[in-house]
Amino acid sequence: MKQVLTMDDMPHWDREEDVVIIGAGFAGLAAAIEAHNAGASVVVIEKMRAAGGNSSISEGGIAAPKTEIQKRLGIEDSPDLMYDDMVKAGLGLNYPSLVRTVVDHAEEAFRWSAEYLGVEYIDRIDQFGGHSVPRCYAAAGVTGSTIIKRQVAKLQELGVPIRLRTRFERFVLDSSGTIAGIVAHEGYDHKDTHAGADVSIKVNRAVVLATGGFGSDVAFRSAQDPRLTADIDSTNTPYATAEALIETLRIQAMPVHLSHIQLGPWASPDEKGYGAGPRFADYTLFQYGLLVSPDTCERIVNELADRKIVADAILAIGRPCIGIADERALQQSGWAIDRALNKGVVKPFGTLSDLSSHYGLDEQALRSTVERFNSFVTQQSDTDFDKPIIEGAAPIAHPPYYAMRLWPKVHHTMGGVRIDEGARVIDLDGNAIPGLFAAGEAAGGVHGACRLGSCAITDCLVFGRIAGRSAATVGKSA
Amino acid sequence: MKQVLTMDDMPHWDREEDVVIIGAGFAGLAAAIEAHNAGASVVVIEKMRAAGGNSSISEGGIAAPKTEIQKRLGIEDSPDLMYDDMVKAGLGLNYPSLVRTVVDHAEEAFRWSAEYLGVEYIDRIDQFGGHSVPRCYAAAGVTGSTIIKRQVAKLQELGVPIRLRTRFERFVLDSSGTIAGIVAHEGYDHKDTHAGADVSIKVNRAVVLATGGFGSDVAFRSAQDPRLTADIDSTNTPYATAEALIETLRIQAMPVHLSHIQLGPWASPDEKGYGAGPRFADYTLFQYGLLVSPDTCERIVNELADRKIVADAILAIGRPCIGIADERALQQSGWAIDRALNKGVVKPFGTLSDLSSHYGLDEQALRSTVERFNSFVTQQSDTDFDKPIIEGAAPIAHPPYYAMRLWPKVHHTMGGVRIDEGARVIDLDGNAIPGLFAAGEAAGGVHGACRLGSCAITDCLVFGRIAGRSAATVGKSA
Repeated sequence: MKQVLTMDDMPHWDREEDVVIIGAGFAGLAAAIEAHNAGASVVVIEKMRAAGGNSSISEGGIAAPKTEIQKRLGIEDSPDLMYDDMVKAGLGLNYPSLVRTVVDHAEEAFRWSAEYLGVEYIDRIDQFGGHSVPRCYAAAGVTGSTIIKRQVAKLQELGVPIRLRTRFERFVLDSSGTIAGIVAHEGYDHKDTHAGADVSIKVNRAVVLATGGFGSDVAFRSAQDPRLTADIDSTNTPYATAEALIETLRIQAMPVHLSHIQLGPWASPDEKGYGAGPRFADYTLFQYGLLVSPDTCERIVNELADRKIVADAILAIGRPCIGIADERALQQSGWAIDRALNKGVVKPFGTLSDLSSHYGLDEQALRSTVERFNSFVTQQSDTDFDKPIIEGAAPIAHPPYYAMRLWPKVHHTMGGVRIDEGARVIDLDGNAIPGLFAAGEAAGGVHGACRLGSCAITDCLVFGRIAGRSAATVGKSA
Repeated sequence: MKQVLTMDDMPHWDREEDVVIIGAGFAGLAAAIEAHNAGASVVVIEKMRAAGGNSSISEGGIAAPKTEIQKRLGIEDSPDLMYDDMVKAGLGLNYPSLVRTVVDHAEEAFRWSAEYLGVEYIDRIDQFGGHSVPRCYAAAGVTGSTIIKRQVAKLQELGVPIRLRTRFERFVLDSSGTIAGIVAHEGYDHKDTHAGADVSIKVNRAVVLATGGFGSDVAFRSAQDPRLTADIDSTNTPYATAEALIETLRIQAMPVHLSHIQLGPWASPDEKGYGAGPRFADYTLFQYGLLVSPDTCERIVNELADRKIVADAILAIGRPCIGIADERALQQSGWAIDRALNKGVVKPFGTLSDLSSHYGLDEQALRSTVERFNSFVTQQSDTDFDKPIIEGAAPIAHPPYYAMRLWPKVHHTMGGVRIDEGARVIDLDGNAIPGLFAAGEAAGGVHGACRLGSCAITDCLVFGRIAGRSAATVGKSA
């Protein structure tokens, strides 16, 4: 058993900072900016060779209610409505005060990213599964790296260092249980664990845990959900692991919702990792198309239900299901799918007959399902699954047809350490751990049993900013 | 923050034992018997004034496959079928090796309780929700206290002491992280926290954590499921709290499934705690009767689905639902309900008309629902909810009608500390904590997202026995 490090283990400190941010994703970089602007000396440590991690490979979608775009388009939305959507998807497990904090600050965080950081967003708005109205925005290039680049540029402008290849190892506590510092490993190389050396960093104000989730940590995730063995792929980078979370539990942080692990329903078994398929599935197929069982060719679910519902429906079929859209849906959605077509993850077909024979489907059964679905689109009412027929939807009848096999992958870990609305980490006894804050996927409780698509970046920016400001103002003298 | 106690904190020990069992419920007492029989000196400590706790107030139902009664009645069953039932209810979150251990040793544990302990079981067999076949047996008097009394008597016969009013407080670790002893509070009085005094107990072999669940611990349970505030009642004794679980997490046990907290769907809002209603609901109403919405008078669920499904269905209605059976169902089930009738929790009605007006139901709608349900019983096929029509079921048409309001209460906490199939407690890093075992509700992973009725006692006896035997043989010298 690893014992918690105390001051007795630290004859000297190698470095000293007011605030140390662990992790250079959306949450950590937002925290660093705010901590600096609140007057602290700040360093961000990041184990990889570049900032961004999972944030960079995300689609860069962010949800916010009552935005200018919504007003322009006459879309009625409110923090309350977004709150209800998040809690419904979360099956009520969400911490009310944390959801409230996210929805009340979502629009402000979105605007901050555009106005202060200079993030460019595509001038459009989407409605992902589980959201009652269109309230999801995509960063330029449909990638989180657009946001990460602006965050990194802002930190450069502010003179805040991001120390790459610096892996967090251990917390050091003083005799009162306050965070006194950390041990990190400089020169970390995930391919050569002997490279580099440990350094100790004295922390004068606070540490912000912004280490993300553990979707790629097979040992830890399968301890929480034994189905998630190494046989299940993940959309995460291979470095989304649990070591920092484990260290935080070791110093008695309260674990929250660790077994609630989200599978992305829009993933393809025909490529590794996140890949190119999900953009087509999420932005075109689920919005305008239909998802059928390879056995019966019948639809299996409201394609616009939340991720848990859609992923569970596919898993219940027991093998990859087939998603189908058409050229008109693609045009209507406005998304390019060249990369998915080039990789062969999405396939074009001139006729439903070709599509059926490619996937070994019963053509007559498929035609009958498509006709039935099309009648729902025409009637603006899906009497089978109550899918909302979104504006601009048309019958699936305009070739080429685009199809994709879908099989879920581990995508997001809703659980983490307990935080309060001030991003303070709460311990087993219900007390804040002095000098420790957490934000983003490392914290649990915001999303309950199921995170809605595009709510993670909102969560990361809102709580990252709160954590950074709080960390900077911890009244601890050097 | 409470620091972990080490040998430095222990200038001397007040007591010394080979094996200390914490908690005098089904699991702890089974562990004590086996530890003694394996040659260890054993003491059981129990915080309350009597042994039994939640175990004593349970209905004493135990599930096992391939029993003599099943053979006599020609019921085809197997450990594999019970495994499948448990994993289906658990939504696949169960640890396969733990479920395997329970089902493979279930019949042996059931027989041990009857033959070695002398527990009397009623000569009948029941099929609770989520079980594919009848495999549930009830201890005489339909109460867990029948089993507890035999366990206590056996320990007296063996000369193993149960120290009552002795509350576990803290673990003490040696420098290698092995359990060296514990601190307990003797003379504990839940009404007077100043009573009594701490004593230290040196442990030569091992400690068995058998402290049960945390269903009555509002702070801890609502940290895991924020819906479970003080407004939600529990079937547990008020002393089913998390303090020992917290101490075990403090020494770095891996938390498993803590947010999976079972609500009993058979509970009545018209009485406190477990009460008298559940026996009627579980043994008569769910088996033979029907459960309707107070709004539409329509059935809401397969009454024989597992607890999570039925409880979620009631919660989705938003107010207490009405369960209805009749005299013939009561006779067929063979259960007396005098106490529930005397308390007014179950009410008799001469006609459906009287029943409707008492609960403010739409009589015509109710009659139509009952007729439809009765046609399913006659046809032996429920085309609405696919409820299995069990042998001896007849149309609900024989007054008096018996009805009860149902609203879920916190009943069982599936989560706890991680154990392996040897009942060893596993830490955050995946290693066994030397000298620590856990069994019963204190351990997580056996039941996944939802425990089937009557599987808890099986779990407690199987893993209690394993933990006791293992604890006694830890090769640690005094």
